[in-house]
Amino acid sequence: MRKGERTRQEIIRRAAPVFNQKGYDGAALSDLMGATGLEKGGIYRHFASKQALAAEAFDYAWAQTFRARVHDLGVIANSIDRLKQMVANFVERRGTIPGGCPLLNTAVDTDDGNDVLRERARKALEGWRSYVAGIVQEGIKARQIHKHADPRKVAMLLISSLEGAIMVARLTRSDEPLEVVQRYLDGYLEDALRAEPQQPPLRS
Amino acid sequence: MRKGERTRQEIIRRAAPVFNQKGYDGAALSDLMGATGLEKGGIYRHFASKQALAAEAFDYAWAQTFRARVHDLGVIANSIDRLKQMVANFVERRGTIPGGCPLLNTAVDTDDGNDVLRERARKALEGWRSYVAGIVQEGIKARQIHKHADPRKVAMLLISSLEGAIMVARLTRSDEPLEVVQRYLDGYLEDALRAEPQQPPLRS
Repeated sequence: MRKGERTRQEIIRRAAPVFNQKGYDGAALSDLMGATGLEKGGIYRHFASKQALAAEAFDYAWAQTFRARVHDLGVIANSIDRLKQMVANFVERRGTIPGGCPLLNTAVDTDDGNDVLRERARKALEGWRSYVAGIVQEGIKARQIHKHADPRKVAMLLISSLEGAIMVARLTRSDEPLEVVQRYLDGYLEDALRAEPQQPPLRS
Repeated sequence: MRKGERTRQEIIRRAAPVFNQKGYDGAALSDLMGATGLEKGGIYRHFASKQALAAEAFDYAWAQTFRARVHDLGVIANSIDRLKQMVANFVERRGTIPGGCPLLNTAVDTDDGNDVLRERARKALEGWRSYVAGIVQEGIKARQIHKHADPRKVAMLLISSLEGAIMVARLTRSDEPLEVVQRYLDGYLEDALRAEPQQPPLRS
């Protein structure tokens, strides 16, 4: 990697927590200078605008966060167990980027403006939703999940519930909302989605 | 009401959508001047600071929002039906204040600073949670709800799920997340919480 590119990546890495904690409008140039140790010119040599830097910082923060949430899911054979582990990861593997969930923060922050950043958040959500829907789809195919389950709706339910729980958890400075929602989603996955084990066909 | 007080209330009413849409940092003085039709001096004659105005604007926005969510619940005798109607109100009675849910917005906006506003959001959440827990408590007493239900945990679950759904709904510009979560919560209220009707005691 060339030195210029290394510097660029380092700026993104250091700016990400600033945007995630303070929001787009709240992240002042002085904050970004403090976090990167660079002057204004040193930062904007690498980025066309604050918005361009914020967009890259979001992508970086989301990549870290998503990686924590899907940590080690690949090794779990059963789809229901994989979904339960994703919920557990969500509850247990927080704080990869200071300031809470970048998706929640950026969605709320850009809700009434800032279309570039909003589009990044929308894509992040869609990517996560497709990932979860894919697990459900596989589970249906493998007869681990009821065939009437709607993969994209299941994904929407899990994501909405978890994101709401993290908002309430951060507001109350308590893990209880996450634990309550985890127990509830686990119950849903077990009781409403998990298919009964198939009886092996009878042979005479 | 004295003229000064009327002006003060009118400033709050007009500033509320600005803060709810743009956030605390994003709401510039020029936005507040535009919304109220007043000069800086005309606004700050009535409020000690931007934070003081934002706090009152939040309380106003939350009062409107809460009222819409608990609309007509009092006339419903059964506690489960009352909770289901609260969920339905949440889904159907949006947009009282432009910019989405003031609780979600303010919680995320003040997550890493602005303790005065954050405390207002925390109190709003606690008030809503107590209100919902109260319905569950009454339901247990009236044997409409299973006696093992934990009123405050049920409240936490409903609130977290609904708030997450509204975030995802606004990001995707779609009602689907709200409908998915509503169906799921209705199922939970019916299947996990509603107590079987009591048999009348046998008499010889």
